Amino acid sequence: MFTKGQASAIKSLQDKKYRQKTGLFLVEGEKSVAETLNSDFEIMTLLATKPFYTKYQRLINGKKIVCEIVEVPEIEKVSAMDSNDSALAIVKQKNTEILTSAVGENEIVLALDNIRDPGNFGTIIRIADWYGIKKVIASIGTVDLYNPKVISATKGSFTRVNVYYADLTKYLTETKSPILGAFMQGENAHKFTFPKNGILVMGNESNGITPEVEKLVTQKITIPSFGSTESLNVAIATAVLLDNWKRN
Amino acid sequence: MFTKGQASAIKSLQDKKYRQKTGLFLVEGEKSVAETLNSDFEIMTLLATKPFYTKYQRLINGKKIVCEIVEVPEIEKVSAMDSNDSALAIVKQKNTEILTSAVGENEIVLALDNIRDPGNFGTIIRIADWYGIKKVIASIGTVDLYNPKVISATKGSFTRVNVYYADLTKYLTETKSPILGAFMQGENAHKFTFPKNGILVMGNESNGITPEVEKLVTQKITIPSFGSTESLNVAIATAVLLDNWKRN
Repeated sequence: MFTKGQASAIKSLQDKKYRQKTGLFLVEGEKSVAETLNSDFEIMTLLATKPFYTKYQRLINGKKIVCEIVEVPEIEKVSAMDSNDSALAIVKQKNTEILTSAVGENEIVLALDNIRDPGNFGTIIRIADWYGIKKVIASIGTVDLYNPKVISATKGSFTRVNVYYADLTKYLTETKSPILGAFMQGENAHKFTFPKNGILVMGNESNGITPEVEKLVTQKITIPSFGSTESLNVAIATAVLLDNWKRN
Repeated sequence: MFTKGQASAIKSLQDKKYRQKTGLFLVEGEKSVAETLNSDFEIMTLLATKPFYTKYQRLINGKKIVCEIVEVPEIEKVSAMDSNDSALAIVKQKNTEILTSAVGENEIVLALDNIRDPGNFGTIIRIADWYGIKKVIASIGTVDLYNPKVISATKGSFTRVNVYYADLTKYLTETKSPILGAFMQGENAHKFTFPKNGILVMGNESNGITPEVEKLVTQKITIPSFGSTESLNVAIATAVLLDNWKRN
């Protein structure tokens, strides 16, 4: 059992203002909490059901985490998810400031220009993880990484992919690497020879890449369409373009 | 203004039982309703705001559709969407029975083995449209095409991609074409030479392809991973595999 005060402190972390004030965020569900236990993220408090605790006891005790055993209805009362029958962790945020715009040899960096939908952002982080991308640069206007819906959609990939927030035009101005941007009219991704390293910029769900960022793109790139729909969802397009790049 | 009886008749179409009983379904939002007006789907009733009506007047009158001009709060009262400030159409369902398992020359058919999430199913139909796929075979256990969330996620692509429900094992047993299936352990999609025509089977979100269908797959195929996440969302995987197939 935890107190009313504790419950409201946990719930307040669904709100960006309180996440910023406390430097904490919520991780929920078995897979995500297990991945967090396996990462270098620092868990401040863990609420776990008995079965979750039993299954991950070794990890929890190894990290000396204070763990409170609770019932499912107690977790769900403070949860941001539709259902949560396993665990909820209060976790310390990492620094999301980027220090360098250098791109490593053979490295692909993903840059996001104002992605607004938490589900899209989280899914993109999961895709980045699949393709071995270690660095995602999010424009200031991109949704908050620590939004519970973003964290949940990453399916634990937030523990492996580093997300940085930056003034995207400044970041792109400073880099020396090729800057590829996803546009409706660009080079055919199936025929293009991708560079060894570089940055892939993906734009906002409705408005695409902003004009200021567009000016800095050195290569516009397009997924060829064989049908009639006007566009692909931005997460889908990110996956297809990274797949095209990584096969090279 | 429409009556309480009309309102509850519209709302009942959010329920599969009533959709089956009436043979009708709901299409909502500007883009989807506009695409339906441009298709051969038969609209029984159209509720439209004044701006929507003004913009699409030519199409509406050309089809001799009875159109009721309504205010936004009236549409939203019967809507299945979070918000709808343009139009709602009650549309006649098409026949979803498949008559042949023949696959055309150069044709790719997409087969879905128990896709359960409406958003995933709708997104897959949109992706199929992008890659010029005309035929999607859904197993009986796949979510209902006419679920408003599926229709909404297709972004109008349901008007161009034909979805058929079938006993998937029976359908696959009868075909003479190659049957590719998405598995975690299969041929590397980046290295595989895709056949000219064939069927791509995608499995359920949690359980993948069922054992009975697996037996009928002639080629297991895998998207190579370069990182550490265990899986990709099924809609993402569908897009990447179709992209790999179509580039050949």
